[in-house]
Amino acid sequence: MISPFSFRVLHTSGEARRGAMTTAHGTVETPAFMPVGTLGAVKAVTSRDLREAGAQIILANTYHLWLRPGDERIARFGGLHRFMGWEGPILTDSGGFQAYSLGARRSINEDGIRFRSHLDGSERMLTPEGATEIQARLGSDIAMVLDECLGQPATAPAVRESTERSARWARRCRDRFLQVQESVARDWGRTVERPEPRIPSPESRLLVTNPGQAQFGIIQGGTEPELRTLSVTRTLDIGFEAYAIGGLSVGEPAETMHAIVGHTAPLLPAGQARYLMGVGTPLDIVEAVSRGIDLFDCVIPTRNARNGQLFTSEGRLTIKNARFADDAGAPDPACDCYTCRTHSRAYLRHLFVSGEMGAAVLATVHNLRFYLDTMAKVRDAIVFGTLETLRQSLRATYSRPLSDP
Amino acid sequence: MISPFSFRVLHTSGEARRGAMTTAHGTVETPAFMPVGTLGAVKAVTSRDLREAGAQIILANTYHLWLRPGDERIARFGGLHRFMGWEGPILTDSGGFQAYSLGARRSINEDGIRFRSHLDGSERMLTPEGATEIQARLGSDIAMVLDECLGQPATAPAVRESTERSARWARRCRDRFLQVQESVARDWGRTVERPEPRIPSPESRLLVTNPGQAQFGIIQGGTEPELRTLSVTRTLDIGFEAYAIGGLSVGEPAETMHAIVGHTAPLLPAGQARYLMGVGTPLDIVEAVSRGIDLFDCVIPTRNARNGQLFTSEGRLTIKNARFADDAGAPDPACDCYTCRTHSRAYLRHLFVSGEMGAAVLATVHNLRFYLDTMAKVRDAIVFGTLETLRQSLRATYSRPLSDP
Repeated sequence: MISPFSFRVLHTSGEARRGAMTTAHGTVETPAFMPVGTLGAVKAVTSRDLREAGAQIILANTYHLWLRPGDERIARFGGLHRFMGWEGPILTDSGGFQAYSLGARRSINEDGIRFRSHLDGSERMLTPEGATEIQARLGSDIAMVLDECLGQPATAPAVRESTERSARWARRCRDRFLQVQESVARDWGRTVERPEPRIPSPESRLLVTNPGQAQFGIIQGGTEPELRTLSVTRTLDIGFEAYAIGGLSVGEPAETMHAIVGHTAPLLPAGQARYLMGVGTPLDIVEAVSRGIDLFDCVIPTRNARNGQLFTSEGRLTIKNARFADDAGAPDPACDCYTCRTHSRAYLRHLFVSGEMGAAVLATVHNLRFYLDTMAKVRDAIVFGTLETLRQSLRATYSRPLSDP
Repeated sequence: MISPFSFRVLHTSGEARRGAMTTAHGTVETPAFMPVGTLGAVKAVTSRDLREAGAQIILANTYHLWLRPGDERIARFGGLHRFMGWEGPILTDSGGFQAYSLGARRSINEDGIRFRSHLDGSERMLTPEGATEIQARLGSDIAMVLDECLGQPATAPAVRESTERSARWARRCRDRFLQVQESVARDWGRTVERPEPRIPSPESRLLVTNPGQAQFGIIQGGTEPELRTLSVTRTLDIGFEAYAIGGLSVGEPAETMHAIVGHTAPLLPAGQARYLMGVGTPLDIVEAVSRGIDLFDCVIPTRNARNGQLFTSEGRLTIKNARFADDAGAPDPACDCYTCRTHSRAYLRHLFVSGEMGAAVLATVHNLRFYLDTMAKVRDAIVFGTLETLRQSLRATYSRPLSDP
């Protein structure tokens, strides 16, 4: 294996782990949160904003980039890092979740997922092999297998069938990934640090842009513990650089999610990273960390920012509220981000009420800083054995429903 | 006078002047371009972006801030600088141009301009005294008199009547401005450097937030040289810290605008700054500088950026064009802005085609840098006597119509 991917647990506190995940584009301190850059851009902010907010790794969407601007185009640019101007680690999802969220516009069979493009209605087929190749072209540091995400509610037999299919797809993804890796190793050798993109096997016309890519498997199984156990067995049997828990945060109660995470995480190898996909609120994240999760992604901080909802040390603020019209305080008095250093709640409210684009920019800068600073606090708390205190504090601040006030 | 406002001509080259304009919030190198921050924010960018682009002074809109969030609210925050987080000089227009652009929703009589608010339809009356007081509350470094902007075409008698009315309004603006200044001087004295906002005359309930505010008169007169001369006479008779040329760039041919500027600028005092309102393209600006103008504002760089039109050293680029889909070059290879240092034309096109908000941010950062760097080149060219060369070069690059390609 050329892959420089590694994961080390540095401290533990109960099930929680403080670790270091090394990728071809640098090391990430875990537990880590990945801002979501669907189309190769985290909405409303620049790569510099991301670095300043403390982002160490970001997520991009295979499905969206495949359709636009196209994975082959990005490969010709030398991969997604160069194309989007982000030099840190990137994880790409596989498109499975987009298939789920597209609903009626897709059909799934053993071969793969048939989509109608949300852009032009054209018919597209995403197979496990295809999803693996697209991610090889994108050159992310971490590729995900193509999985089927069922959503809730689903009958136990349907979940079982879907879980077995996801396992078969995972095998096909891994096989294709290893073929690509072998071609890369043969062609590049082991000594090249940052090679130019090359075509490892000309007959496949596959332009690989990151020879150090790792691949994560995904545990499915819905909300049935025994199906989760089955999925863990099937997926570990294949073997990946690390493992994700998918199919959660899709409508089930928070308690169910916590229970499934608490059941599944300990079944995964202690020495490998664990990624809970699509989660969540600050409280969800801390609950999952305390159950052994290392990696998170979620659109909440960025999407809520654009809607004017700020995460602060004082709880959630709906900044458009009239009560902030004369509030000269910083959006979050405890925050060190550009927005909080520079602007008042009243000004931010004014920009939102006026429909100014800068409102989304400033709120996104803040929400990302809040999330990433919370992750830093989580990492410290694991080392100092104070995670329970942090969890209680976040619970007190963030247990109110998202729709308040 | 408390006002620290001053203007010095440092170099001349023909009619063109290189100067320094000192305001209560710092000194501006002229010729200068003012980015437009209508609602107390230059659309899509932060104050930091503005500083990095080289902005030394910005413009904000009296009419818009009066309606939302309200000048009294801003005054309670200590003025517009503090409210919006911009510590450099600010010029506020008077609302006259907004009256013009609102068209049917306003009526003008001797007393002032009656508007229907574009926000809630409420009836508002903007008088010369009112516009002066609103700007005193906003605390801009440079306030403009309320003028009537007629637009083209207009009959000579209508222009003459309007010009005379603007002169009478200018007198009322100046009288009210001087009353406020005297109250400020009496209340604050001359020694306070950066005082807290105070109410100089309690009966007026006027919270003044910038005791060092200056006021510019505006020359009207349409496209008739003799009416421009009349307006200069009337306006100089009142006496202001500096003079603007208004009522241009409202639909007349570029040659007419240049001719009126060429006629009017030399009639203005050589030792005072001259501001051409609402102009313009890079070429328009250089043409006006060569006729003796020192100060400019225009929405073109910011608005065109949001529409995907970039100003570059190679000319205008409509970045959405398919020909940029695989263009790995910087948006402007000669530019040092964040966008051009970090991203390719292909990436910027991808963001625009995908409707990503970041597209507007990155394009605005670049266009402002292009404009402000052009102003730096203009200032150098005046000192080195190379303005004609610069003008020829810009003419070659920018004489194509705005709608290309």
